[in-house]
Amino acid sequence: MPAPVFREQLRDTDPDQIERLVRSTEFFSPEEIGIARELADDALANREHSHYRFVFAEQNGVLAGYACFGRIPGTRSAWDLYWIVVGPPSQAQGVGRQILCRVEARVSAAAGDQLYAETSSREQYAPTRRFYSRCGFKQAAEFPDFYAPGDGKIVYVKLLAGS
Amino acid sequence: MPAPVFREQLRDTDPDQIERLVRSTEFFSPEEIGIARELADDALANREHSHYRFVFAEQNGVLAGYACFGRIPGTRSAWDLYWIVVGPPSQAQGVGRQILCRVEARVSAAAGDQLYAETSSREQYAPTRRFYSRCGFKQAAEFPDFYAPGDGKIVYVKLLAGS
Repeated sequence: MPAPVFREQLRDTDPDQIERLVRSTEFFSPEEIGIARELADDALANREHSHYRFVFAEQNGVLAGYACFGRIPGTRSAWDLYWIVVGPPSQAQGVGRQILCRVEARVSAAAGDQLYAETSSREQYAPTRRFYSRCGFKQAAEFPDFYAPGDGKIVYVKLLAGS
Repeated sequence: MPAPVFREQLRDTDPDQIERLVRSTEFFSPEEIGIARELADDALANREHSHYRFVFAEQNGVLAGYACFGRIPGTRSAWDLYWIVVGPPSQAQGVGRQILCRVEARVSAAAGDQLYAETSSREQYAPTRRFYSRCGFKQAAEFPDFYAPGDGKIVYVKLLAGS
């Protein structure tokens, strides 16, 4: 695959592309796919007033991966990484790490100093958890059975440079 | 004060009353007061499609306290207690506990079995933390400096009967 091209501006076609990308991973439930799409719809509808920020990676003109993030309301400088997804054809090439690097740069530029990410404790998500660990996140909490019986939530946090 | 009267239906006048009540506690930032109001505005705009549920307590025809709660998207049976507030004239009379009891009954009736609540680690919130402990919540996590330096987030969870 060619080197990814990154952009931060949301386009009208992104909600459809995001839905297709998130579905293609076969990782997410229909409700989760709907939520991923809704955040992009919200950002298109509310433009600069939207709470949600994005980083997109394209390869061969197609969405290869993306992240959605935003400041956590009520906090001074804590941000949430709501979504980071790389499609199967682009996985294991460092695309996720490059997307995350751009997210962190934008959070830092906005005076954010903590980046939170949540994922599942299920075996299926072991690669996701390894990704966060390799990228400098530390486990901050675990909530057993949060998503469903036997499917806990693990919360990671990364303290960003300057904090 | 007379015994509170409870209701669950949201009225057009509730966003204003909620804003006044939340402000009257002198506990919340302008941003937090705005969020409390927004959840009620959302519920009025979207009616039965809204994510947010409410319990209101009135004394002498005035809003004495309320709770706002909802199922956590992406979870099977975890609910979030977004807000529970009792105004100064009605505090220390068991109103908060009675509101919470009604919240728990509705969550259980909707097959919810975990109720999450978040609060601050600051000294000012010691009465809030005691309230959750007395009402059967257990601390599930602590995130230092989450809201601001020296102002951490504490997450409580209560497992509801039947779970």
